[in-house]
Amino acid sequence: MNLQPSALSLDNPVFHTYIVAATIMILKLMIQPWMTVQRMMKVRAGFRSPEDAKKSPINPQPNAEQLEPNEYVERSRRMNLNDLESIPGFLAAGLLFVLTGPPLLLAQILIWAYVAARAAHFVAYATAQLHDIRATFWTVSSLAVIAMAGYALVQSI
Amino acid sequence: MNLQPSALSLDNPVFHTYIVAATIMILKLMIQPWMTVQRMMKVRAGFRSPEDAKKSPINPQPNAEQLEPNEYVERSRRMNLNDLESIPGFLAAGLLFVLTGPPLLLAQILIWAYVAARAAHFVAYATAQLHDIRATFWTVSSLAVIAMAGYALVQSI
Amino acid sequence: MNLQPSALSLDNPVFHTYIVAATIMILKLMIQPWMTVQRMMKVRAGFRSPEDAKKSPINPQPNAEQLEPNEYVERSRRMNLNDLESIPGFLAAGLLFVLTGPPLLLAQILIWAYVAARAAHFVAYATAQLHDIRATFWTVSSLAVIAMAGYALVQSI
Repeated sequence: MNLQPSALSLDNPVFHTYIVAATIMILKLMIQPWMTVQRMMKVRAGFRSPEDAKKSPINPQPNAEQLEPNEYVERSRRMNLNDLESIPGFLAAGLLFVLTGPPLLLAQILIWAYVAARAAHFVAYATAQLHDIRATFWTVSSLAVIAMAGYALVQSI
Repeated sequence: MNLQPSALSLDNPVFHTYIVAATIMILKLMIQPWMTVQRMMKVRAGFRSPEDAKKSPINPQPNAEQLEPNEYVERSRRMNLNDLESIPGFLAAGLLFVLTGPPLLLAQILIWAYVAARAAHFVAYATAQLHDIRATFWTVSSLAVIAMAGYALVQSI
Repeated sequence: MNLQPSALSLDNPVFHTYIVAATIMILKLMIQPWMTVQRMMKVRAGFRSPEDAKKSPINPQPNAEQLEPNEYVERSRRMNLNDLESIPGFLAAGLLFVLTGPPLLLAQILIWAYVAARAAHFVAYATAQLHDIRATFWTVSSLAVIAMAGYALVQSI
């Protein structure tokens, strides 16, 4: 099997699909902590470090309970941890998948299925839908990454 | 120092070594959460979100204790967190290491030492071996990634 | 828009900037757990797995309290988690940013702003500075990654 010399060029439609989806997912990964920040500022609670309950311009009226877990804030932290368990794997698997020259249609299906499933997972998690709904979207996203990594492995050995 | 024009091609034996090991480690990264799922389903406990203790097809007989930490489930979560602290670093360090054109033998030793050490670490963690055994395998894997990143840094400056 | 054929070569000054910064950040990512290990060894506490409180050469005088959270150790763990939320995103965003051929000056500013902000964040976190100081550095690093991912996305669509 041979690799295209310009596999990582926008002229390669598989890479084009990948880079658009990958940058969207990186933005999702980086913006989730901002949701945690926004929630902490809103309820002025759910802080994690002892020094965060000190008086400061952002926290003018501190109190010790601010350091206790707050479900509204913890939900965003769990969503962030879920991103960490999924998005770096997608980014790496997708890049190696692109480098093994998959058919464009297969690449489009796996990559956009991943993005769509993660978007739906985000909504289901943020709105506290029943576990089974969230788990369904998570399963689709997980299988998409496993399929890309598996394809790249099989093409390489 | 010059880079091979086709550094990210399967014709490059260093890249070939990397992509096989990297896709195996991505599969490991993505499959660990399934072990957590399997354990949660087995003991019907160790859930994390309040909505997970609601009645659903997957959870027909819910109760509030399902939300308490469960060591059998938490062990798989700690293994997942340990993967997150190690595998993305390996994937990135390995790719940049490949791009700086290391000797094949060095690449094979570092890459396969990492994979072997993580496999042994998985077994030691899953079976709750004495800390010192787990720590030994973790040390080997950590030093392999540090060596690859350090090599790429020195070759680049 | 066209990509340079040798975008991932040290002849490309944007890639050169990236690989030096990226390998430094990978070393930071991999060395943080060693700080956790060093702190656990120093206070002989803050362990996480039940088997870590068993007698062993590294832990000759075990006791059950060793498994309770220890703030000195937990601080290093939070710093590690913060790295996990940031560094893989930087590594991936930076690589895709390089592949979309940004101006060198823009690349240097964003990449070194990220590295400097993370170094300052490390110091602020390790020494428990007021939250607002830590948050300022975190914000700079987060915006640098968002800018790189956003640039690559806009150049690709």
